[in-house]
Amino acid sequence: MNREQALVLATAAGEAVRGTTSPNPPVGCVVLDADGELVGTGATAPPGGPHAEVVALARAGERARGGTAVTTLEPCNHTGRTGPCSVALVTAGIAHVHYAAADPTPQAAGGAAHLRAAGVTTSTTGTDPAPLRAWLHRQRTGRPHVTWKLAASLDGRTAAVDGTSRWITGPQARAQVHAERARVDAIVVGTGTALADDPALTARHPDGTLAGHQPLRVVVGHRPLPAGAQLLDDTAVTLLLDTHDPHAVLAALTDHPDVLLEGGATLAGAFAAAGLLDRVVAYVAPVLLGAGPAALGDAGVGTIARALRFEVESVELVGADVRLVLGPAERG
Amino acid sequence: MNREQALVLATAAGEAVRGTTSPNPPVGCVVLDADGELVGTGATAPPGGPHAEVVALARAGERARGGTAVTTLEPCNHTGRTGPCSVALVTAGIAHVHYAAADPTPQAAGGAAHLRAAGVTTSTTGTDPAPLRAWLHRQRTGRPHVTWKLAASLDGRTAAVDGTSRWITGPQARAQVHAERARVDAIVVGTGTALADDPALTARHPDGTLAGHQPLRVVVGHRPLPAGAQLLDDTAVTLLLDTHDPHAVLAALTDHPDVLLEGGATLAGAFAAAGLLDRVVAYVAPVLLGAGPAALGDAGVGTIARALRFEVESVELVGADVRLVLGPAERG
Repeated sequence: MNREQALVLATAAGEAVRGTTSPNPPVGCVVLDADGELVGTGATAPPGGPHAEVVALARAGERARGGTAVTTLEPCNHTGRTGPCSVALVTAGIAHVHYAAADPTPQAAGGAAHLRAAGVTTSTTGTDPAPLRAWLHRQRTGRPHVTWKLAASLDGRTAAVDGTSRWITGPQARAQVHAERARVDAIVVGTGTALADDPALTARHPDGTLAGHQPLRVVVGHRPLPAGAQLLDDTAVTLLLDTHDPHAVLAALTDHPDVLLEGGATLAGAFAAAGLLDRVVAYVAPVLLGAGPAALGDAGVGTIARALRFEVESVELVGADVRLVLGPAERG
Repeated sequence: MNREQALVLATAAGEAVRGTTSPNPPVGCVVLDADGELVGTGATAPPGGPHAEVVALARAGERARGGTAVTTLEPCNHTGRTGPCSVALVTAGIAHVHYAAADPTPQAAGGAAHLRAAGVTTSTTGTDPAPLRAWLHRQRTGRPHVTWKLAASLDGRTAAVDGTSRWITGPQARAQVHAERARVDAIVVGTGTALADDPALTARHPDGTLAGHQPLRVVVGHRPLPAGAQLLDDTAVTLLLDTHDPHAVLAALTDHPDVLLEGGATLAGAFAAAGLLDRVVAYVAPVLLGAGPAALGDAGVGTIARALRFEVESVELVGADVRLVLGPAERG
């Protein structure tokens, strides 16, 4: 197995633990022996547990000696609740470390330099693996990464004029949303959505049972939730934020770098107007409504020159619907 | 070359003349000699000129004898301004005819039966080639085929709140719309769009020069156009229809089977409400507006159970935008 193949595996290992590692990043690591054979895979354990490199090294055992560690993030050089990964890699006799993103954290950076000083060669792709997108964003900008999820008709409506909306998108799209909820740190909605829909905002399997990881549920706005609201049940923790300011919302979620904004239109508009939508995941149904609530409320765009422009990251069919992912536009 | 490959070529030949053949269908034909070598390709000439089979046979000459004709439509059996293609094929000594769609026209049908009676074997795929979609629809239903084209932001807006809309979609999407205009029989807009935008509704090349074929321009509504409106210039014929009834519009366009509905939202909503949108071609820009005119006006959908449901036919990137094509939903 070559390094590129190993990095694909390491990225998948990291993706599998996304949502369960905060405040640590969901890293994945693959150890190849001196002949390039796969001898260990690991991913970041929940907080307090071992990092990905340590898990993968433990699985590889003696076969790691003279081998290569391939990891999605530069190995940390920091003693927190666990010892530095850079030291563990040297101790295990790893000869080469290949990693994707450099660690931007002041206290953890320097892992690659430490490895080289100990005689371990290093290489890097300099890329940001998808599972680390939110964590890297949080480290670089100081605020959580916000993904706005919407499900709408082709003409941009989230319900019919009488308020009915079950269902615009199909079961495959809804299952994908639940799988994504199980991978994020927090789900944010406004009180309007909370009061109108009484959503549970839990991550559920298609059979209705709860997923193993439940994100923090965050309700933004001044209006109280009624007793008996599903958001007040004990399936997950709910944070009520008595504000309308998106910046204040994100300040309260510093330890939850991967935020999924699920609605409604007014709150999404406020985040858009504040420049706080980092990514948009849209499920567009092959449906026309012609009237009914719009997916996005006022976003402070008065004229076309001030339109909020993104770039298409991916587009695919999900069941009968189209999933469109928008990311930041390249600045020309 | 086998028959399947020949049918792909024949379909491309038909597509190349789409928009120039009405009231005749844009048929394509490929003639293979007895060894399967391509010896002639043809497409329907403008009205009064030869049909595709006759063009392809003329190019093949004596090499057609004992060969195969592959055509997108069952050869006609009807003497109109030209003689029946079925007779021409027999005269040329064609041994086998392979065609896609059966001819649904009462006066032209029977071509395959005539061929078999004359000792020519026949086979058919029974499929509808894309260039014939509108013509076949017109023959089967008695009314033109309507494609609604829209260009909108991801949140379903066609302009910012101040009315500015240049440009939401990019140059590649706009070029594709002009290429499509050159292939249809008629473009329809409402007076609202005509008065607000003063559109030319011509098919233009990217350098601004006019395409060889210009569709009929149709303006629907009660308000008159001002003198000097681009729609009243002499670059193409314009039909003013003093009605708001989509059925009346299509009744006036019986000889224009391939209709492109370009706006505005009110007229598109009226067609949608009347069940007269056969296909939707949407250019969705990776842009958020949050306010401004909606792409689709009232379509008579009061509740989600009455939503207008389609099926995704294709989805692709066109420049920075996403092109989504919706067709009729399979009835479950």
